[in-house]
Amino acid sequence: METKKKVPEVVIRRLPRYYRYLSELEKNGKTRISSTALSEKMGVTASQIRQDFNYFGGFGQQGYGYNVKHLLNEIEELLGTTNGYKTIIVGAGHLGHALANYGAMKRRGFDIMGMFDVAPEKIGRECNGIKIMDMKDIESFIREKEIDIAMLTLPKTVIEDVANELVEYGIKGLWNFAYVEIKTKKPVPVENVHLTDSLMTLAFKINQKIDE
Amino acid sequence: METKKKVPEVVIRRLPRYYRYLSELEKNGKTRISSTALSEKMGVTASQIRQDFNYFGGFGQQGYGYNVKHLLNEIEELLGTTNGYKTIIVGAGHLGHALANYGAMKRRGFDIMGMFDVAPEKIGRECNGIKIMDMKDIESFIREKEIDIAMLTLPKTVIEDVANELVEYGIKGLWNFAYVEIKTKKPVPVENVHLTDSLMTLAFKINQKIDE
Repeated sequence: METKKKVPEVVIRRLPRYYRYLSELEKNGKTRISSTALSEKMGVTASQIRQDFNYFGGFGQQGYGYNVKHLLNEIEELLGTTNGYKTIIVGAGHLGHALANYGAMKRRGFDIMGMFDVAPEKIGRECNGIKIMDMKDIESFIREKEIDIAMLTLPKTVIEDVANELVEYGIKGLWNFAYVEIKTKKPVPVENVHLTDSLMTLAFKINQKIDE
Repeated sequence: METKKKVPEVVIRRLPRYYRYLSELEKNGKTRISSTALSEKMGVTASQIRQDFNYFGGFGQQGYGYNVKHLLNEIEELLGTTNGYKTIIVGAGHLGHALANYGAMKRRGFDIMGMFDVAPEKIGRECNGIKIMDMKDIESFIREKEIDIAMLTLPKTVIEDVANELVEYGIKGLWNFAYVEIKTKKPVPVENVHLTDSLMTLAFKINQKIDE
């Protein structure tokens, strides 16, 4: 399912949060939720929620609210996670290992097919059942397995070069953990994870004595 | 510096991004920036930027724009990073090690003073110069060193109990990596890092063919 209108970044960023809250509701056996209740949980107005969903064809029903399972399915389709994504981790350091051990990924439709590194002592090992392979085999691996996403846990000095190569081999999106914004020659979606942004938000709240 | 008005969450979340862009400008030797240029970089309107800064007393000057260094200093004061924060990592697994090796933290005013774990084989070791200590010594460490922030890389089954204890010992804020929202009995600011949110945003962009 593709959307018709250009979806604002801020709406896109709310989708995973909708997904999280709805998953929780489903797990707790809730089958429907009113737009008011959903709006309270999300911290945005009910009208904002209706606007958000209108970008995607509108999922609600007047007087009934939202069907939790239906809404979850629609969001999963928007995210493309129903078909699943094939991913690899590039860089088998601590962060790479942490990601390989992060169970939530698989449950959400992201399958980690392999890890890659240049260090001879790491190559051939396994991490949480995922094999660590030689960087020089990455091209054939991506092409043969049709890998969608590369998770980049690399030093920022090499990251842009590696990113460009991976896109050349067919990678469709990059999840970047280096503290640098990357731009590939051939444009693909890139998500830069800025861990310190969240830490700074915490600092602000501590400093301003905001207890929430 | 404390703000007078209640600052909306969305404005708080933009602060670290302002900080990132301004740091970059400063590094590149820029001393001032127009509100139009800043607005293009941030992807929000110039009027939105003025509104944001008005929450904090307004930093701009008509016809001049913003003084980069001055603006950076003001934001640092809001974040409280000028005085620095003392932090500890709780849980010395892969993610704990990755955080201990994350240089950007120190440069932004977050000093990691120690790591804690319950596993005997980890206790006594060092990671990037940071000592791994026994969880049973965490209370005295927090009290003596006056630790501000605990970075929690713990299984979600134990995390709320540990969080409550740490707050009891004097911790002022929690940076939580477990896939569960924690609420402490005595309220302190908590930042939950939801890594998969960012991955799902990437998935959405791949699925909708949005190349940015």
